[in-house]
Parts: sequence; structure tokens; C-alpha cells
Amino acid sequence: MRHDDLGDVYCSVARTWSVIGERWTMMILRECFRGERRYDRFRSKLGLGANVLNDRLRVLTDEGVLERVPYQTGPVRHEYLLTPKGADLYPVLVALMNWGDRYENDVPPVELIHRDCGHPAHARMTCTRCGEPIAWRAMTAEVQPAAW
Amino acid sequence: MRHDDLGDVYCSVARTWSVIGERWTMMILRECFRGERRYDRFRSKLGLGANVLNDRLRVLTDEGVLERVPYQTGPVRHEYLLTPKGADLYPVLVALMNWGDRYENDVPPVELIHRDCGHPAHARMTCTRCGEPIAWRAMTAEVQPAAW
Repeated sequence: MRHDDLGDVYCSVARTWSVIGERWTMMILRECFRGERRYDRFRSKLGLGANVLNDRLRVLTDEGVLERVPYQTGPVRHEYLLTPKGADLYPVLVALMNWGDRYENDVPPVELIHRDCGHPAHARMTCTRCGEPIAWRAMTAEVQPAAW
Repeated sequence: MRHDDLGDVYCSVARTWSVIGERWTMMILRECFRGERRYDRFRSKLGLGANVLNDRLRVLTDEGVLERVPYQTGPVRHEYLLTPKGADLYPVLVALMNWGDRYENDVPPVELIHRDCGHPAHARMTCTRCGEPIAWRAMTAEVQPAAW
């Protein structure tokens, strides 16, 4: 099986991983969530070779996660904006950050503040029915017969 | 910058990505969350070459995400179990699944049921302070001066 084939199996984790599960992809998206938009900024911050960065940006634009938009003419230059589909990857970013805060750093490098309630707050994964935080052992998976 | 160097920068997303942000890694963890433990099962399900699977399992055990435990003697065979640190990657899995359910599949392949409340339920990322679902545009990041 090829990694690209993950996009064709009937599994939502696999299909998402086929879009973002490459070296560097989530780091590029991290820059986008921080407000970076430009190729040169991605490249200098991440220290990526052009071939890797071009490949990742191509996949993300092909998949509708980023949109490539001109911001100047003569010469034409483009920037990369998160689409609504791309912005919906924010919970993935937060889940990665939470785990890193817990296990990989003594002092969290970034604190999130929820503007709607105005206080420092973290985000966590909770049950939509009862609102309690969820953990693996508390969840059962009902799997469709055709699921991969 | 090398991908392995992400483990040394002061960013929780980067450090987490240095552990799981490789082709196939999250798919191996998906199998673990489903209850699979054995090398041959990972290999046959994912269709991976031995070199790739060995490398990913080595990283995950070195990082304390999986524990390699003998389950028989003569010959000795091992299985791979999620540690508590590994089990805490569940919100990452759920975040990936939610996005795939929304954008990549018409019918979700897997439905999650929260045993504590006994009803079909989804998990979503919510604010720890007010309990409301969070989205990128509703959050502000306060960044430590030394953060990468």
C-alpha cells in the first residue's frame, strides 16, 4: 500500500492523514494559524528546501486546505490563506499542542485565550452529549461494516 | 533544519510532530487504539515494508508512546501496548477523525459512543472555561518570548 492510497480507504483518520500526514505539513499549517501567508516566510522560518515546501503547498492547495491568492502584480506574487476547510484543522493543532504541553515542555510556550469568554482557557476534547472530557478508555467505537 | 530537530525547539506542536509526524505513524497508532498489538497485524493491515514499520515502532517506543512487552517465550515474541502517554494521543486521533468525517466521507465510518453517558456522542474541542466549542478565530495565542 502506498501512503497516497490512504486517501481512498473508508477511514476518516486515514483520509485526513493522507492530506496532512507528511513531514513538515503540520508545521506549515502552524505558521498559517499564526498568521503567516507567504512562501518566503514559511521557507525562512522552517528552513525547508524549495522542493519540500512546494510539494506540501501543492498538496494543501489541491486539497482545498489553503488557497493561493495573488497579492501583487508586476511581478505577480501569491500568498497562501487558510480556507474554512483549513481553519477547521484548528482542533488538530490544539490537540497536538496540548499533548506537547503535557509531555514535552515544562512551561507551555503558548497559552490560548478564548475571546468569547475573555479568560485564559485551554481547549480540550469533550463529549458532545454530556460535556465531560473524553479519554480513550471511556469511548466505544461502532464501526461501519465497510470501514477500513 | 532537519525534521528530527523539531524535537528540540520550544514549541509543543513541533515537539509532538517530531514524535508522530511521519508517514504511517498515526495509522500505526490508529491500529493500537483499535486494540491491535502485534507486529504482524500492523504489517498486514497497513501493507508496510519491514524497514518503515520497524523505524516507526522504534521511535514510538523510544518516546514512551508504546511499550514493547513479551507475550510468549520459546521463541520470545513481543507486542506493543499504548502507555498512558500514548493513550493521551487519543484527542489527536479524534480530531483527525472529526475532520475526515466532515470533509472526506459522506457517511462516517466510525461512530464514537461515550460509555460514561451511554449515548452516541461525538467528541469536540471545547473551552475549559466556558465549555463552548472553540474555533481558530475565537482564540488568541499568548506566546512566551522564547517560543519558537
